Amino acid sequence: MTANGADAARRGRRRGELTVAAIARLAGVSAPTVSRVLNGRSGVAMETRRQVEALLREHGYRRPDSIAPSAAIEVVFYGLEGHLAIAIMRGVEQVVREHELAVGFTDVVGRAAAGRSWAEQLLARRPVGVIAVHSAFTMEQHALLAASRIPLVALDPTGEPQHTTPSVGAANWNGGVAATRHLLDLGHRRIAVISGPARYLCARARLEAARAVMDTTGVPLDERLVRTGRFFFEDGLELGRELLSLPDRPTAILCGDDLQALGVYEAARQLGLTIPDDLSVIGFDDMECTRWCGPPMTTVRQPFDEMGAAAARLVLSLAAGDAHEQARIELATTLVVRGSTAPPRKN
Amino acid sequence: MTANGADAARRGRRRGELTVAAIARLAGVSAPTVSRVLNGRSGVAMETRRQVEALLREHGYRRPDSIAPSAAIEVVFYGLEGHLAIAIMRGVEQVVREHELAVGFTDVVGRAAAGRSWAEQLLARRPVGVIAVHSAFTMEQHALLAASRIPLVALDPTGEPQHTTPSVGAANWNGGVAATRHLLDLGHRRIAVISGPARYLCARARLEAARAVMDTTGVPLDERLVRTGRFFFEDGLELGRELLSLPDRPTAILCGDDLQALGVYEAARQLGLTIPDDLSVIGFDDMECTRWCGPPMTTVRQPFDEMGAAAARLVLSLAAGDAHEQARIELATTLVVRGSTAPPRKN
Repeated sequence: MTANGADAARRGRRRGELTVAAIARLAGVSAPTVSRVLNGRSGVAMETRRQVEALLREHGYRRPDSIAPSAAIEVVFYGLEGHLAIAIMRGVEQVVREHELAVGFTDVVGRAAAGRSWAEQLLARRPVGVIAVHSAFTMEQHALLAASRIPLVALDPTGEPQHTTPSVGAANWNGGVAATRHLLDLGHRRIAVISGPARYLCARARLEAARAVMDTTGVPLDERLVRTGRFFFEDGLELGRELLSLPDRPTAILCGDDLQALGVYEAARQLGLTIPDDLSVIGFDDMECTRWCGPPMTTVRQPFDEMGAAAARLVLSLAAGDAHEQARIELATTLVVRGSTAPPRKN
Repeated sequence: MTANGADAARRGRRRGELTVAAIARLAGVSAPTVSRVLNGRSGVAMETRRQVEALLREHGYRRPDSIAPSAAIEVVFYGLEGHLAIAIMRGVEQVVREHELAVGFTDVVGRAAAGRSWAEQLLARRPVGVIAVHSAFTMEQHALLAASRIPLVALDPTGEPQHTTPSVGAANWNGGVAATRHLLDLGHRRIAVISGPARYLCARARLEAARAVMDTTGVPLDERLVRTGRFFFEDGLELGRELLSLPDRPTAILCGDDLQALGVYEAARQLGLTIPDDLSVIGFDDMECTRWCGPPMTTVRQPFDEMGAAAARLVLSLAAGDAHEQARIELATTLVVRGSTAPPRKN
């Protein structure tokens, strides 16, 4: 074994992997420049940075273990509503505190592009692991995290990630099945569905579950009663008004999330319809305030606290060197029956 | 100047202050034991720890600057609802990220007493500063933080802190004034008040503001229409039902917070009363979901994001050595008029 090989072995490097010096030679830059890129530090021209990152990826560079990380798990939020974020944070913290680590919080939305990016800052802090909620990372950032040996777990309530990252989600399909069965059991036949954006797999899963259950029950979903909108209150309000203004309006509306369902509540209120007497409504998520709306909402609970805890356990076990890099953990959803569903009014 | 004095000066220590070694001699323990207490490490008997802490406080020990802190501001929550916590976190993060620091999150509620306490763990991480939301710290913990030179700011939406800690709050009195004036301007005369717990100064300020405004307007508050409850939905529901069942029921209810107001919404719904036609309701806080309830709620906005940002700026400036240890920052509240208030129905 050459001196170089011994050095590589001592630092836990596989044979054939390149050193920082070798990457620097290939890029035609100095070794400190490569280090700066690896550590997310500033002072490297954008083009040089991109070139170095490409070489690091290409050669599967992995940072030696010898560099001490900061004692924190960082949670990165991207476009997630506050009512879900805090439950996730609590779940993460409950697990992480047992390991006497800190929990960091970053909100990427609305972040200015000036100065060092949040991703560079994150890398520079060298956390034990990163939990990305709703997939904020590009493929390049994924690769850079991997090169820096910082394990990443995607906590992705709005869909399965497109990359090969370990992830935690909830059983969207089963939640859709339970909600639809509940409406059919109550006697509803004219059931409308307001779905989330078609590009989200979670929205697809919920819609297709409803379609499948109704089909197998002999009450096929009327396509004229299907609407698609963003996961917002405003979209629920608008699409709800549309559906409730139909000559033969639905007796129940299955919503893509709780915000859409709250929008439907408001649509019903504006049209003088009473929930659940004139209309049954089911949400999805079980955000805190569904308990406080009038009437309290029947909804499908996603266990965001448990999802946070599971993501934390997964990222800690990756940090400890356990190899399940393709892991996908899916937690159960639960139908929570409250006051917004009832048998349809007899005509 | 003696060698010891020069050493103390070099480390930014005032003359006459004791060293760790001197504290150790006084306590009859070793210097490493004192260090362990200062760093929040385990392996020190409870009684010894208490004795050392008492000596550190007694002699006003301040940790030398030379020890490098971790690059984070930690936010400690204590019994605060999630809908407020995330706005505070976002506000803190917006300021802290400009300094390229991490933001830590700790939720103290429900934390088991076993193992090292959260406070010990927090000390061991040596953050740049700590923001305590809703005053989770005992006087002893305050003193220990001070001894460790970790600046602390209280962000205390439920009242002024009882200790001499720099703090950030909102203008509760002015919010109460604006809400009451709004109801009087609409023509209400039978106005009920549901107040928060009397031990919270913020609840007192809101109630007394209503009383003062009504008194100076020549419409003294009817004491039979005043109720006190916790800042919960359930208390708003119960007290709302009580008030709305009175023979001569109020035409408007001023609530201590949004959760109580949501409880009043539910009480009105159960009694078949329509908001705002039969009853006007005003909340306090402007939590996110007040925009989504039926009808959207008129409430007094506390700027939790700005309060978080102000607390972050204050703790960073304390960490930089700026001396305003008695600072109290009070941010403005704003009346947000939505759909839950209207002139009283003519009889």
